[in-house]
Amino acid sequence: MRAAIAGASGYAGGELLRLLLGHPAIEIGALTAGSSAGTRLGDHHPHLPALADRVIEETTPETLRGHDIVFLALPHGQSAAIAAELGEDTLIVDCGADFRLKRAEDWTRFYGGPHPGTWPYGLPELPGQRAVLRTARRIAVPGCYPTAVTLALFPAFAAGLAEPDVVVVAASGTSGAGRAPKPHLLGSEVMGSVSAYGVGGVHRHTPEMEQNLSAVAGTPVRVSFTPTLAPMSRGILATCTAPAAPGATPAALREAYQAAVKDEPFLRLLPEGVWPATAMTVGSNTAVVQVALDERAGRIVAIAAIDNLTKGTAGGAVQSANLALGLPEELGLPTNGVAP
Amino acid sequence: MRAAIAGASGYAGGELLRLLLGHPAIEIGALTAGSSAGTRLGDHHPHLPALADRVIEETTPETLRGHDIVFLALPHGQSAAIAAELGEDTLIVDCGADFRLKRAEDWTRFYGGPHPGTWPYGLPELPGQRAVLRTARRIAVPGCYPTAVTLALFPAFAAGLAEPDVVVVAASGTSGAGRAPKPHLLGSEVMGSVSAYGVGGVHRHTPEMEQNLSAVAGTPVRVSFTPTLAPMSRGILATCTAPAAPGATPAALREAYQAAVKDEPFLRLLPEGVWPATAMTVGSNTAVVQVALDERAGRIVAIAAIDNLTKGTAGGAVQSANLALGLPEELGLPTNGVAP
Amino acid sequence: MRAAIAGASGYAGGELLRLLLGHPAIEIGALTAGSSAGTRLGDHHPHLPALADRVIEETTPETLRGHDIVFLALPHGQSAAIAAELGEDTLIVDCGADFRLKRAEDWTRFYGGPHPGTWPYGLPELPGQRAVLRTARRIAVPGCYPTAVTLALFPAFAAGLAEPDVVVVAASGTSGAGRAPKPHLLGSEVMGSVSAYGVGGVHRHTPEMEQNLSAVAGTPVRVSFTPTLAPMSRGILATCTAPAAPGATPAALREAYQAAVKDEPFLRLLPEGVWPATAMTVGSNTAVVQVALDERAGRIVAIAAIDNLTKGTAGGAVQSANLALGLPEELGLPTNGVAP
Amino acid sequence: MRAAIAGASGYAGGELLRLLLGHPAIEIGALTAGSSAGTRLGDHHPHLPALADRVIEETTPETLRGHDIVFLALPHGQSAAIAAELGEDTLIVDCGADFRLKRAEDWTRFYGGPHPGTWPYGLPELPGQRAVLRTARRIAVPGCYPTAVTLALFPAFAAGLAEPDVVVVAASGTSGAGRAPKPHLLGSEVMGSVSAYGVGGVHRHTPEMEQNLSAVAGTPVRVSFTPTLAPMSRGILATCTAPAAPGATPAALREAYQAAVKDEPFLRLLPEGVWPATAMTVGSNTAVVQVALDERAGRIVAIAAIDNLTKGTAGGAVQSANLALGLPEELGLPTNGVAP
Repeated sequence: MRAAIAGASGYAGGELLRLLLGHPAIEIGALTAGSSAGTRLGDHHPHLPALADRVIEETTPETLRGHDIVFLALPHGQSAAIAAELGEDTLIVDCGADFRLKRAEDWTRFYGGPHPGTWPYGLPELPGQRAVLRTARRIAVPGCYPTAVTLALFPAFAAGLAEPDVVVVAASGTSGAGRAPKPHLLGSEVMGSVSAYGVGGVHRHTPEMEQNLSAVAGTPVRVSFTPTLAPMSRGILATCTAPAAPGATPAALREAYQAAVKDEPFLRLLPEGVWPATAMTVGSNTAVVQVALDERAGRIVAIAAIDNLTKGTAGGAVQSANLALGLPEELGLPTNGVAP
Repeated sequence: MRAAIAGASGYAGGELLRLLLGHPAIEIGALTAGSSAGTRLGDHHPHLPALADRVIEETTPETLRGHDIVFLALPHGQSAAIAAELGEDTLIVDCGADFRLKRAEDWTRFYGGPHPGTWPYGLPELPGQRAVLRTARRIAVPGCYPTAVTLALFPAFAAGLAEPDVVVVAASGTSGAGRAPKPHLLGSEVMGSVSAYGVGGVHRHTPEMEQNLSAVAGTPVRVSFTPTLAPMSRGILATCTAPAAPGATPAALREAYQAAVKDEPFLRLLPEGVWPATAMTVGSNTAVVQVALDERAGRIVAIAAIDNLTKGTAGGAVQSANLALGLPEELGLPTNGVAP
Repeated sequence: MRAAIAGASGYAGGELLRLLLGHPAIEIGALTAGSSAGTRLGDHHPHLPALADRVIEETTPETLRGHDIVFLALPHGQSAAIAAELGEDTLIVDCGADFRLKRAEDWTRFYGGPHPGTWPYGLPELPGQRAVLRTARRIAVPGCYPTAVTLALFPAFAAGLAEPDVVVVAASGTSGAGRAPKPHLLGSEVMGSVSAYGVGGVHRHTPEMEQNLSAVAGTPVRVSFTPTLAPMSRGILATCTAPAAPGATPAALREAYQAAVKDEPFLRLLPEGVWPATAMTVGSNTAVVQVALDERAGRIVAIAAIDNLTKGTAGGAVQSANLALGLPEELGLPTNGVAP
Repeated sequence: MRAAIAGASGYAGGELLRLLLGHPAIEIGALTAGSSAGTRLGDHHPHLPALADRVIEETTPETLRGHDIVFLALPHGQSAAIAAELGEDTLIVDCGADFRLKRAEDWTRFYGGPHPGTWPYGLPELPGQRAVLRTARRIAVPGCYPTAVTLALFPAFAAGLAEPDVVVVAASGTSGAGRAPKPHLLGSEVMGSVSAYGVGGVHRHTPEMEQNLSAVAGTPVRVSFTPTLAPMSRGILATCTAPAAPGATPAALREAYQAAVKDEPFLRLLPEGVWPATAMTVGSNTAVVQVALDERAGRIVAIAAIDNLTKGTAGGAVQSANLALGLPEELGLPTNGVAP
C-alpha cells in the first residue's frame, strides 16, 4: 500500500515519515507541502537520510491522488476541500482539527466559521471506537492534548469513579506549537522557562476533551484546561483531576485502570508509586498513565505522558490507519522509546 | 549588620550569598555547612568570585553566634536546636520548614515527629503579615510552592471571589530539589522531560498552602496539589484554579488583583492577555501573576511565576529580614530579572 | 541467536536493549548488572516497557554463559576476567575501554595498571577493518569521542589531504558521563551551561584517536583533544581541524569524502553548505560529516555528529556484532533519527 | 548622566537596560527601535518591570540627541549615519561591528561594502587599551566571540608563550544569534542539539580575533575559528589552542596568566584544575579563564567562559563607557553571576 503525506515539511509530517519508513506494509508515495514545495526533504528533516533527496511536491488533489492512504498534516480548514477531490475508497487520515468535533456550535465557538463535519475519531482506546475505525475511510486524528487527557481519565469515568468537574493542567514540548518561526518559540525564549498560554477555557482542544470524556461518562463533563509550554522539544504531561465519586477507593481505581489497559497495546499503567515522565515515551507510541486518590482533597489525580508527535499525532494516525486497513494495530509502531 | 549563613554550600545558601553581596546594609559574616565544612566557597559557588576564597566553617552555635542575623538553610529538623543556642535578640531567618506550620497535626502527618513550633511567617504580602514581621526576631521563610500559590490566589480569596476547593499543578525547576546528587536529578534524566512526583496530596507543601489560603478566606480551603519537575534550573509556574464564587466577573477579578498588588514592591499583575513565564522572574524577587475567569468551566484560573531560589527562598528571606531589621523592604533585592 | 547484556541498568546497556528489541535476528537473554541486580529493568529503563518486568541478575560468568553473544557494558577493568570465563566461540562485544588500545604504554599512561590486551576494533568504517570484524569473536567497541573524530577525519588522512597535527574540540551530551550520580552532572548544573573538562591532553580517548588516525595516515598523528559537556542528553559534535596538506583543494576534499562514504551504510556526507547538528542523529546509527577548507588559516575543518549512545556505543556494538555473526551489517539498526 | 539606547527591543538592548537600571551614575533616557517603535518595552522585556510601561520611540537622530551617552545596538551598517548626526561630545558606544576593524580589506571581505572606519576598541583588558578608552568619545564594543577568545589567549601571546597558529572552537548560547525569528533558532530545533555553523574561516568575528591577538603578539596571528550553537540561552565557552612556544612550561603559563589578571576587575583565572563553565558567568561581567599545557601535543589550551550578553556585549559596553566617562570601571557592573 502506498501513502501520500501532505504537509511533509512540518513536524507532524516528519514524524509520519519517520514512522512510515519503519512500516512494513506501507510504502511512502508523494510528499507534498505548501510553501516548501520544490525543496528537498533533507532540507527540512535532516534526521531522515533515507528520504533526503526526495523533492517535495505541491499539495494538490493531483499529487495526492492514486494513493491507498493520504495523511493530511495541514493547517486548519484545508482538509475538506482536499478530501472532496479524493475518492471515497482512499483512506484519508487527517491530523488536523477539521473533523474532530461533533457539535457545530463547539466548532464555531472555538475555531470560527462553518463546521466542516465529523469523521470517525482516531482514538482506538476509547470504548467502542476500535470497531468504528475498522471500517472507516475517513479518520480524524485526535489533538495531542485530548489524546493525553482522554487516556488519563477515561478509565475513571468508564468505571464511574470520577465526577464530571475536571481540571487539567498540561505541559507540552515546543514541537506542539509547530514549525512556523514565531518570537516566543525561539530557543532563547523557551529554554529555562515554563509559561502558560491559552488560559481561561479558550484553548481549542477543550471541547474535544469534553466530547470524549462526556461520551465515556454518559453525562456532560466540563473541563477547565490550562496548557503550558515547557523547555523540551517533545512530550506532553497531562495532570488531570476530578472529584472522586462515591466508591472511588484506591483499590477500585487501580482495578479500573488495570482493566482499561489490559488489552491495549499502547496504553501502560505504571507500577504503583511510579509517576509518568515524558522521557518514558519519547519516540514511542506508548502512553503511560498513573492514578491516585487524594482523600484529603477528595479528588482523583490521573496523569498521562505521551510523545505529542508520536501517540499525540503521527503514531496515533498510523495506529488508526492500521485498523482501517485491516492490518495489525501495532504494525510499524514503536512501543519502546528513546531515552535518556 | 553582619549575617551568618548556615548551609552556605547548597543552592539556597548560594542564592542568599548572591543577594547579600549586593545588599548595602548587611555584611556577610560566617559561612557554615555540614559535610562541606573546610572547603572553599568557590568550590561550590564558582559564580560568586567575591567569596571564592572564603573557607566554610562547621555549622555550630559557636560559629553562628555573634551575628545580628542568622540565615538557616538546613535540612528539616535542625533549626530548633541551633536557634535555642542563639540569643533572643539575634534575628533568625529559617529557610527550612520547621516553623512554618501552625497545626501540630499537619506537621506530624506531613513531616513526622513532634511539631517544632511556629514562627512568624515570612510572606509580607499576606494581609496583615507585614506588621507582624516588623517586630519579629524569628522568621519562618515560606516554602517555594506555597509562595507561588499563595501569591496567585490570595487576592481572589481576600475578595471573596473564589470557592475553597483549589486545584494546583505547579512546575518547578530542578534547583528546588536541592543539590544532593540523586539519580533522577541527573541532567540526562531531567533534560527533555517533565515528570510528576508527590502526587495525591502527599507533598509537604500542601498544608502550608491550605494554611495560608484558609487564613485569607476565613474558611477552610482544601488544596489538591500536584508538583511537576521541569527541565530548567530555576523557576516555578503555579497554575491554580478554584470555583468562581458568585460575583466573580472578569472585572471584579481584575479589580481585586489590582488592589492586591497596588503597594506591593515584588508582586506584579501582568497586563491583560499576558500570561506568566518563569523567564520573567529569573534572578529577581518579583512574582508575576495573572488571573482569568473560565466562565464555561465556572472556575477562576490564577497563575504565578517566581524564581524558586529568589522570591521562593532566599529573596523572600531577605525581604522579611529587611522588615524585621527596620530597613526598607526592597533593600538589596532585584526587581528586574535576567533574561533571556 | 541469544544475547546477554552485562551492565543492563546503565545508559549503554539501555541503548543496547532498545536496539536489540528491534533486531530481527537477536533475542535478548540474560540481563545482568552489579549493584542493580535483583531490581526490575523497568526501574531503570521505563522507556522500554517490553522488558519492564524482567529482573536483573548479577553479572557473573554463570549468568552470561550459554549465550551466542555477550555484550559487556561494564566499568573499566572488569571485562578481561569475565571474558576469560566464557568460551572462545562466544562472541564478546566489549563496550568498555579495556581492549581498545594496541600500545601497552598508552594504556598504562592513560588508564594505569597492566595492559589488558587488544581485541579487533569495532569500527567497520576504518579502511580494512570490516574484513577483520567478519571473523572476530572478540570485539572492542570504540569510545564515543574516537568514533566521531575518526569518522570526521579518516577520509582526509586516507587521501593524504591533512597533516598530522590535529586539534579536536568536541561537545558531548551528559549521557556520555554515565548514570552514576555526581554533583556536577545534576540537571541544575548542566542545564544552561557548556563546560570544559579533561583539558590538556589527559582525556583517555586521546590515544585511541591517535591510534586510529595514525593507522590511516601511515604516519604518527598527534591530537590535541578538548572535550566539553553540553546541555543535552545525547549527541557528540566533534570539530576537528588539521593543517591542509599540499593538494587539499575544496574539490579534492569533497571527492575524498564522497569516496569514503560511498558504500557506507551509516556514514553520511551532508550536502555542501550544510553543517552537522547532533539533532540529525538522535536515536540513529548514522554519523553525519562535513568538511571545509579554511584557506586563510591553512587548515581543513571536518565535523562529525553522532549519537554517543547509538553509533558511539550500542549501535556501533551491534553493527560490529552483525558483521561477526555473518548478518547484514545494517540489521536492526536505525539510520533515521528522532527529531525534533 | 543620561543614556539613550537605540535597539532597545533586542537582546543586547535588553541587557543594556538591565545593567543601566542598576547603574548609580547613569539614568535611562530615550529607548528607541526600528519596527518595535510605538510598542511598550514590557512587550519585549517582561523581565524588566521597572521599564514595562515605557513606550519605545523610533531610532532617529532627534530621539537620540540630547543625551550624554548613546548606546547603539543596531544591525550592521546603521551606526555611521546616526553617529554623524550626534555631536562630537556625545559618548557613542556602538555594540555593532561597524567600527571594530582596522583594515579596510578585512571589512570588505567579511562584511562587504566600504569600510565605515575604526573607533577605539572597547576591550579595556587589552594591553594599553584602558588608557585609550579613558579619552574616547566613540567606542566600538568588541564582538562576543572575539571578547572570549582574546581574553583567553592574550596573556599567552603577551608573554611570548604561544605561536601564532591558533585554533578556536567556541560554543555560544542562542541569544548570540539575536531575536529575529528564524527556523533554525526555534526551541524545537536547538534544544537537545549542538550544531556547527560559519565553518571554514567565514565567520565575521575571525579578523577581529586576529587583529587583537596580532597586536598583542607583535606578529601576525592567524586563527582557524569554528563557532557552534549550544542549547542554552546565554554564554560562550571558547576553547583556544596554539602551539606552545619555547619556554612555555606550565609554571610559566600560570605566571603569565596570574600577571595578566592581577589588576583586572572582570578577568578571573580559575584555581588550577578547575575549568570554565558558562554557568559561572551568567548575568555577570566576569570572564573566567584557565590554561593548560598539553605537552604531548605541543599545544597550549586556553579556555574562557563569558556571558555573551554581559561581558560579551552590554557589560563590555558599560565597562568601556565607565572609563570614557571618568567613572570607576566597575560601576554598576555585577561581578557575581546567577547560578544554578
